[in-house]
Amino acid sequence: MKLLETRMAPNPRRVRIFLAEKGIEVPTEELDLMKGELKSDSFTKLNKLQKVPVLLLDDGTPICETIAICRYFEELHPEPALFGKGALGKATVEMWQRRMELGLMAAVTSAFRHLHPAMANHEVPQVAAWGEANKPRALDMLRILDEQLASNRYVAGDTYSVADITALVTMDFMKPARVQRPEGLVNVERWYKEVAARPSAKA
Amino acid sequence: MKLLETRMAPNPRRVRIFLAEKGIEVPTEELDLMKGELKSDSFTKLNKLQKVPVLLLDDGTPICETIAICRYFEELHPEPALFGKGALGKATVEMWQRRMELGLMAAVTSAFRHLHPAMANHEVPQVAAWGEANKPRALDMLRILDEQLASNRYVAGDTYSVADITALVTMDFMKPARVQRPEGLVNVERWYKEVAARPSAKA
Repeated sequence: MKLLETRMAPNPRRVRIFLAEKGIEVPTEELDLMKGELKSDSFTKLNKLQKVPVLLLDDGTPICETIAICRYFEELHPEPALFGKGALGKATVEMWQRRMELGLMAAVTSAFRHLHPAMANHEVPQVAAWGEANKPRALDMLRILDEQLASNRYVAGDTYSVADITALVTMDFMKPARVQRPEGLVNVERWYKEVAARPSAKA
Repeated sequence: MKLLETRMAPNPRRVRIFLAEKGIEVPTEELDLMKGELKSDSFTKLNKLQKVPVLLLDDGTPICETIAICRYFEELHPEPALFGKGALGKATVEMWQRRMELGLMAAVTSAFRHLHPAMANHEVPQVAAWGEANKPRALDMLRILDEQLASNRYVAGDTYSVADITALVTMDFMKPARVQRPEGLVNVERWYKEVAARPSAKA
């Protein structure tokens, strides 16, 4: 199998961190977004959405979507469990992973795609007003996260999970996305220091 | 336990269909979005995002987010499996559920929230250009779905899954959202007729 990805984008990094936490090594192949390699016929056959990451299995089957790829590896290598354990544990990770992805990551990504000049040819049409509307949304979600982290070591509770991965990757993406981190979120800062220091964060 | 929801919105319907497919009955409590019941202090304590559905467990624990609630029930009542079976099966359902949710449902919902006058007080600011930009995106995803359904009975393959639920609910939401269904998607029409005729679709 191999992982088709690009170093630049936040989603492939989520998969790389996930694999590092599991201790799984998968060969990767870098595609160049800026050279249009995601729009090629051969790549479009693998993912009609023209997005990375894509996990290509040995029989040629493509698995698209970051979280689908992570779940595939969770099933094959259940430990450490990054999607939670038991009905309530799995539901709680799903809830926070979704909040981090749909509430935080989507907001930061929208600000990036709709406001950054480098995205003008990739996000058509760029709607600047929509990009701006997303900045306060990202900050609102960070405040909700700060409250959660006041009584929880990790995003979804006592245990590191895929929700931490999504949140960490998004925090790091805020800089290129030009979304300023709010000051004074002491719990988020404490949590960020801890998860960013894990070896997997270098992935 | 009870399910806090509203009949008007597409997300709670996803949970109702999911439960109907599983043959699970859960008491529901209707909240009135238009009367501001999602903004009340008591509801905000359960879900800071002020969104339904929320599943309230007997010990007072809230589970928020449609797919998190569905996953909770999948763990407690594994049959019929609506999130797939085995590593590749689960990854495939996750992939298509995400495509239907992030590609189709999010596009239709954005058109609705940013263009419909009834949403003016709920989506602030309404960005009409963003609403319009989402209409062709929804149609692009329906075309991708049509190709998928040319060789698959259901959205994620041979078996009915949560991806079908998300797609069905979104198709039905296109009318109030004023997003016109494209003509000539014969596979989507064939599939829609079948899934809309299941008893669960009345939920």
